[in-house]
Amino acid sequence: MRDIHAMAPARGRIELQRVGISGVRKPVSILRPERVVTLSASFTVSVDLPSGRKGSDLSRDAELLAQAIDWPEARPVPSLEAACAAIGRELLERHPYAMESHVEARAEYFLSRGVSPGRESLENFVLIAEASGHRDPDGIRVRRAIGAEAVGMTACPCAMETARERLTVEFPLLADPSLKGLPIVTHNQRNRTTLIFEPDDASEVEADEVIGAIEAAQSSPTYAILKRGDEAQVVLNAHRHPRFVEDVLRDLLMSLPERFPALPPATVVRVRTVSEESIHKYDVVAEHRTTMGELRASR
Amino acid sequence: MRDIHAMAPARGRIELQRVGISGVRKPVSILRPERVVTLSASFTVSVDLPSGRKGSDLSRDAELLAQAIDWPEARPVPSLEAACAAIGRELLERHPYAMESHVEARAEYFLSRGVSPGRESLENFVLIAEASGHRDPDGIRVRRAIGAEAVGMTACPCAMETARERLTVEFPLLADPSLKGLPIVTHNQRNRTTLIFEPDDASEVEADEVIGAIEAAQSSPTYAILKRGDEAQVVLNAHRHPRFVEDVLRDLLMSLPERFPALPPATVVRVRTVSEESIHKYDVVAEHRTTMGELRASR
Amino acid sequence: MRDIHAMAPARGRIELQRVGISGVRKPVSILRPERVVTLSASFTVSVDLPSGRKGSDLSRDAELLAQAIDWPEARPVPSLEAACAAIGRELLERHPYAMESHVEARAEYFLSRGVSPGRESLENFVLIAEASGHRDPDGIRVRRAIGAEAVGMTACPCAMETARERLTVEFPLLADPSLKGLPIVTHNQRNRTTLIFEPDDASEVEADEVIGAIEAAQSSPTYAILKRGDEAQVVLNAHRHPRFVEDVLRDLLMSLPERFPALPPATVVRVRTVSEESIHKYDVVAEHRTTMGELRASR
Amino acid sequence: MRDIHAMAPARGRIELQRVGISGVRKPVSILRPERVVTLSASFTVSVDLPSGRKGSDLSRDAELLAQAIDWPEARPVPSLEAACAAIGRELLERHPYAMESHVEARAEYFLSRGVSPGRESLENFVLIAEASGHRDPDGIRVRRAIGAEAVGMTACPCAMETARERLTVEFPLLADPSLKGLPIVTHNQRNRTTLIFEPDDASEVEADEVIGAIEAAQSSPTYAILKRGDEAQVVLNAHRHPRFVEDVLRDLLMSLPERFPALPPATVVRVRTVSEESIHKYDVVAEHRTTMGELRASR
Repeated sequence: MRDIHAMAPARGRIELQRVGISGVRKPVSILRPERVVTLSASFTVSVDLPSGRKGSDLSRDAELLAQAIDWPEARPVPSLEAACAAIGRELLERHPYAMESHVEARAEYFLSRGVSPGRESLENFVLIAEASGHRDPDGIRVRRAIGAEAVGMTACPCAMETARERLTVEFPLLADPSLKGLPIVTHNQRNRTTLIFEPDDASEVEADEVIGAIEAAQSSPTYAILKRGDEAQVVLNAHRHPRFVEDVLRDLLMSLPERFPALPPATVVRVRTVSEESIHKYDVVAEHRTTMGELRASR
Repeated sequence: MRDIHAMAPARGRIELQRVGISGVRKPVSILRPERVVTLSASFTVSVDLPSGRKGSDLSRDAELLAQAIDWPEARPVPSLEAACAAIGRELLERHPYAMESHVEARAEYFLSRGVSPGRESLENFVLIAEASGHRDPDGIRVRRAIGAEAVGMTACPCAMETARERLTVEFPLLADPSLKGLPIVTHNQRNRTTLIFEPDDASEVEADEVIGAIEAAQSSPTYAILKRGDEAQVVLNAHRHPRFVEDVLRDLLMSLPERFPALPPATVVRVRTVSEESIHKYDVVAEHRTTMGELRASR
Repeated sequence: MRDIHAMAPARGRIELQRVGISGVRKPVSILRPERVVTLSASFTVSVDLPSGRKGSDLSRDAELLAQAIDWPEARPVPSLEAACAAIGRELLERHPYAMESHVEARAEYFLSRGVSPGRESLENFVLIAEASGHRDPDGIRVRRAIGAEAVGMTACPCAMETARERLTVEFPLLADPSLKGLPIVTHNQRNRTTLIFEPDDASEVEADEVIGAIEAAQSSPTYAILKRGDEAQVVLNAHRHPRFVEDVLRDLLMSLPERFPALPPATVVRVRTVSEESIHKYDVVAEHRTTMGELRASR
Repeated sequence: MRDIHAMAPARGRIELQRVGISGVRKPVSILRPERVVTLSASFTVSVDLPSGRKGSDLSRDAELLAQAIDWPEARPVPSLEAACAAIGRELLERHPYAMESHVEARAEYFLSRGVSPGRESLENFVLIAEASGHRDPDGIRVRRAIGAEAVGMTACPCAMETARERLTVEFPLLADPSLKGLPIVTHNQRNRTTLIFEPDDASEVEADEVIGAIEAAQSSPTYAILKRGDEAQVVLNAHRHPRFVEDVLRDLLMSLPERFPALPPATVVRVRTVSEESIHKYDVVAEHRTTMGELRASR
């Protein structure tokens, strides 16, 4: 059979930066200390294409993903980012004409959470992993990114303050010193925050610690099972930690030096946080990209 | 050319209830009392297929939609449901082998809203229209459905009550009679409610009144522009009208006899309401289907 | 604590048909003959609410889902529909005021497929399960629905015929008898088909057989790994089985009596098929609802 | 009222790159040579936040969008990108503490298309516009991006070649010279391609020309109304222009110097193309970022 992909393009000689396959659904089994967990994941992989080739051998991408990931019970991987890094390296092995590879994966992930003993349930989060391979004269180098998304809750500090002023006019007793610290009504809502690290070395990042860092920066985590007393506890906790998206972003960033002391200074940090405002039909969003080194210097 | 659609099916003789096209995007111009508004709409249309035909003439569906809707500046329609009713009738004219037709349309719609004078903005809603045509010996009858979806806000009455009990232990002054009526913290969130009427006659329903009825049943409408004082006003309003989804559903249903007195008793009413709970990662939902006659009897 | 949910509604006395929680994400472990598979699933559950109660005890829904489904490694279920049926029954146990319960679940599911030996990969499908509980004087009855969705491919028989006519004018040799049976160009596309059974008894339906029935009715299944020769084989197979959505729907329905001989005649059958037409920006859709008894009679 | 946003953050002093609002839906009226068209658009806007401020004055973002866009019949804008550029400038006027602003808009857009006279219909596309404002000592500079997305069709050249080889074994007459040029079966599918220009000056780009360039690089445009003969014509046209995503990307890029001769060499060009493969459940994707200058040099 003629290899159409390997022929020269009919028109134009231009190299293309990324050619690949997207939305490949796979079950992934991950080795955890105490057990194997199976997650549903979606993969996107690509390599560059030199100017002399008409097409990329995309069936190799699908074949490689099947060999790396399929039949998960039989073949657990140490982590989603380790799987991505291995795939990023193997892409360059199987596409000898390519210089760069990219892998992205998102997987639904569950952790046990509970506001009271006996009320634990599995809460859903998202694991994020990426890998970029680069072929240079000394061989293939792979850079990884490791992150997660967590949904929690924010309560607005500004509406709380203006509500307090208005209510104090209507209820003068609110100014009584004994009511100092009384949580005041405000709007609160789902907050969706993503934190991703790109270490420049082989540093490990534990997904559960990424999720824990995000939850600590929100006004409160959220839970599937809340009996009446629990519900009040979550509401009060959120109103005692009112946060703008700016606060979530800043508090999360400022917590990273202490939470991840081993990450090298050149580690890139990307954070994005979105509050699905209850008083608006649109969302409020904040994002920032920095390094662990800059974060340590700015404390 | 051979007409493959009109041939007999190779295997099996079975009539099919619905065959059509879905996700047809169109701009629709609607004549309002004072002006013409142009909306982006999505249409789904179908007819039944008798057992002796291999396929439905789907190009007629697309042609009919283009003739009824395209070039909107030149051809405004009186309303989205009038357009659907005309399309439902015309589908049976152009598919002489069909006995039933179905049309569904959803369009993004904007209304001016403001919590304070000078703070008006256009808020987005969804118009919903349906039509079902039926061919019987006396000709074609068309039944219409008319509705809308509005996003507003709910504040939970249960968490408010348990928070009040907990806070009163911590802040005994809260029990002071002068603080009766003080809004207490609770979780609040986006609520998405749909109300659809299916009159059995030619009754008109005004979309703006459908949206008004929904907004009145939520804890508060929501707004794009809220300066600091406005924000407190919306928050206080919502906390003074705490509502479960059950309350939104029930209050909306109970308001309909007074708001829509002219609708005949056989008019079917469908309501669905979803609160995107701020304290959970999942939604809370309530729905009900009844008639105007039953609603009038249950007051 | 006061039980706000159990109080009488402030306004109106009307019973509500469905109140529940939606979009609850869970990992589900299912016992298969040879192993346990873990799937990501989404659940919606609801019960009715009598007119005398303000609210439904929704925390019981979340608690019940956690007890039935969470910690999947430790607690595999026999099937998704068995889990739904147990949840449908338990909802009525835990909501003593309710007469009806509804459960819906969708889970991503993987099966090994390959067009050639050694080219197997895991292909993604969707499992669908539903349960409706009804409390009557003799106790609780639960009715189940069991189904699946599979993505395959359709090739259009009509465009193939008109292309043949046009090409025969341009290439008269095409009329040569030795070219009878030559596959001719047409448009082809992704087809997404759902088949759901609602048996009125305890009949079992095997998900893999539901998926197999759907794939057999499409022009061809689709595959993740296709080397050059495989790709031609899938394309030729699809063009040798050109199908309208009407054909997919009819052929699937007509195949059910032979494929599922044990299902009782009152079993409701629901089918929906959507082709994402390559020559249009919109989809083509067909759907039908019937019973196994009617299908057996119409052969 | 205390201005909570203007206060210093409680924890940490770090500037944040982007804080804003997202998913703001608006109707936009655009002045075209012959008429005003009204489109549904979604806006995201943001500015940076200095380290000394707790929050961004987000109500100004919503107010500004309402003033720039609302009441579209009364206030048409010259183009979506002109509206974005004005908003990007005004964001820096209203947030005096900010140095950078970002605006993104996507709007559904309709153009008349027809494969035969009398078969014209409105086809849906997406307009894309962005603006980035930068405050420097000499004032505010704004850089714009202008683009569009169009859905068309690709037919695979590789499967066509391998199908030809297989069919020639089965039908030796296919090798007859008179059949040279006969279109051969292959898989074809929806292709979604985005082209965006970022000129470094005030160059105008006409959206209709962006869409025209995309459609010319696909195997064929797609149409709402196709009678039998038209359908064959589109299918044959696509099979006479088989294209990998790599071909769509390369052909589109290579066509730009001739189609957009006036764009300055520093104009950034971003292209992304996705084919929703009919023989796979996943998509194939290619993307590239370059400049007009590089494209002119590579011819």
